Amino acid sequence: MEKGILIVLSGPSGVGKGTVCSALRQRIKDLTYSISATTRAPRPGEKDGVNYFFKTKEQFQSMIEQDELLEWAEYVGNYYGTPAGFVRDTLDSGKDIILEIEVQGALKVRDKFPEGVFIFLIPPSLNELQTRIQNRGTETEETIRNRMSVAKEELGMMMKYDYVVVNDEIDLACSRIESILTAEHCKRERVMPAIKKRILEVN
Amino acid sequence: MEKGILIVLSGPSGVGKGTVCSALRQRIKDLTYSISATTRAPRPGEKDGVNYFFKTKEQFQSMIEQDELLEWAEYVGNYYGTPAGFVRDTLDSGKDIILEIEVQGALKVRDKFPEGVFIFLIPPSLNELQTRIQNRGTETEETIRNRMSVAKEELGMMMKYDYVVVNDEIDLACSRIESILTAEHCKRERVMPAIKKRILEVN
Repeated sequence: MEKGILIVLSGPSGVGKGTVCSALRQRIKDLTYSISATTRAPRPGEKDGVNYFFKTKEQFQSMIEQDELLEWAEYVGNYYGTPAGFVRDTLDSGKDIILEIEVQGALKVRDKFPEGVFIFLIPPSLNELQTRIQNRGTETEETIRNRMSVAKEELGMMMKYDYVVVNDEIDLACSRIESILTAEHCKRERVMPAIKKRILEVN
Repeated sequence: MEKGILIVLSGPSGVGKGTVCSALRQRIKDLTYSISATTRAPRPGEKDGVNYFFKTKEQFQSMIEQDELLEWAEYVGNYYGTPAGFVRDTLDSGKDIILEIEVQGALKVRDKFPEGVFIFLIPPSLNELQTRIQNRGTETEETIRNRMSVAKEELGMMMKYDYVVVNDEIDLACSRIESILTAEHCKRERVMPAIKKRILEVN
């Protein structure tokens, strides 16, 4: 059976990763969503194994030590991480899985899952940036320098990704990502083993 | 401006390249179709520059000598070839162009246009092959050997392509190819120069 594909959706904060990801799940019914592990307490209505895998600090520490996390980070006193097992099990069962994650985390996942499909979501405002910055009279030199440095930093991160999708409209962004998933399933490297096996089986 | 993409649609004879290609042109209105040059006489209704570029043998020979053809072949006494200029002009104008061609020709185009997107169309009957061949009682050993050798030859050709699309239903095959085109337009390598240029322009 063909393995599923891991899609990693990332991009600068505020670009709309969460919104696009939710919309995608509505659109592609058989897409599994990677569930994070966390040490923070469940909020009312949150369920273990649905919203998060809720762990004690000791359990989380042990997951780190056993290399059971694709990546992890601490945020306001709590730990958050991506359990490798759930991702691997989903892929082995032939289903695609999407992981929505910030840029640093995504790069760590890339080390462990180089065969994943890494999508960088960008705001359409990279276009606007030019107009704004050319309006030099209205901005301090410091603001201009800061903007340019942020833009360059984002560019540098983009280099590590397979695809760049502009989030101009959620529907458009979703349909681009859906196309990327379809195209990846047609990639020769992914299709060949299954076809080869079929042929070899009858030898 | 971002350059257009050259899509090369190929595959074994009888797989339905022509039908899929016509359906695609209906679906994607701004897709240009590569026009072949030929030395054969126009049939009633055929127009120069629409159906073919009609050439004399001398003109065709000169195109070969000037390296103006991406590939060419002789078929029942006439020459057929793909003019490079038309493809390059279309791509430079930012439009995508599709070239429907048999396997040998496609491989020659790959030498000159490695940045093209090479799609191998396969019949769903590779699946059926297994069942048929396992039915050994009803087939001679020679038939079995021939079938297997054809299948293996096709497999070998597939290795040279970027994508493999199963032509099970024309609509499905078309929408896979459309997705491949969308995904290719989101590829980081293709998108980066345009984004970089925008940023550098304001430096």
